[in-house]
Amino acid sequence: MADPVFFEFLHAEIIKYIVGDDNSPSKDLDLSALDTMGFSCGYRIIERLTREWPKFKDELEVVKFICTDFWTAVYGKQIDNLRTNNQGLYVLQDNMFRFLSKISIGKELMEIAPNYYTFTCGLVRGALANLGVVSAVNAEVQIMPSVKFHIQVQRT
Amino acid sequence: MADPVFFEFLHAEIIKYIVGDDNSPSKDLDLSALDTMGFSCGYRIIERLTREWPKFKDELEVVKFICTDFWTAVYGKQIDNLRTNNQGLYVLQDNMFRFLSKISIGKELMEIAPNYYTFTCGLVRGALANLGVVSAVNAEVQIMPSVKFHIQVQRT
Repeated sequence: MADPVFFEFLHAEIIKYIVGDDNSPSKDLDLSALDTMGFSCGYRIIERLTREWPKFKDELEVVKFICTDFWTAVYGKQIDNLRTNNQGLYVLQDNMFRFLSKISIGKELMEIAPNYYTFTCGLVRGALANLGVVSAVNAEVQIMPSVKFHIQVQRT
Repeated sequence: MADPVFFEFLHAEIIKYIVGDDNSPSKDLDLSALDTMGFSCGYRIIERLTREWPKFKDELEVVKFICTDFWTAVYGKQIDNLRTNNQGLYVLQDNMFRFLSKISIGKELMEIAPNYYTFTCGLVRGALANLGVVSAVNAEVQIMPSVKFHIQVQRT
């Protein structure tokens, strides 16, 4: 059985490849490739995880699945806090976000944080898409290594 | 615990990013980035796997560890066959190489196969390097999805 840390190592290498060794501030970079990679992985991981899963009864149940089973499968822990305004906005808080937990804290952190959470924004968006929920996903870092992922469901 | 297939998904996305959607023949591409990513991952995976491991007594023991524990940790199975000329050349054969096992067989296969095994060549080289064995690693595909990895130990 693979250790989840191998996924982390590979993720770190992708960041290095796209961002470069000097870890440029995110504003100078086009991170859409990371988002796209995340989307595809999230989509496929859901196929793997929900193969024999019953249908979810509503959107909230889908989001809860992302917070528990999905997050545990990928990051080895659950989301610590879930909030919603009951109008399609969900905020998922991970207090020890794996991809940031080993980054040293510096003043430039806020500038480079998107390098580390953009893939996961795509991952969540891809996972939700495969479960029938179209969304926009963003993230914010206030206190390292805690990350809040904002999901805005897009209803048609 | 993460499923080893997540590692595979992420690897597939990297290939797509570097190679492009049309899966160009490898001769037109610079695959060194894949090799470098593999090297770093292999190096770090060894740190993770051998943390409380006794020292290996010789080079052959190191290579056997790559064939068994290392391969199982990353790919979920062992190497099927190991041969050596006892002069620093080792041939590791994986009859169901994970990154090729889901590629459909076409006449252009031999041209694109390096897209799928280059990362792993780097992975093996990085793992060996961290265990004190400097090597050059190549691969060949004769019958899909079987791959032979050739390790040539470089002695000083």
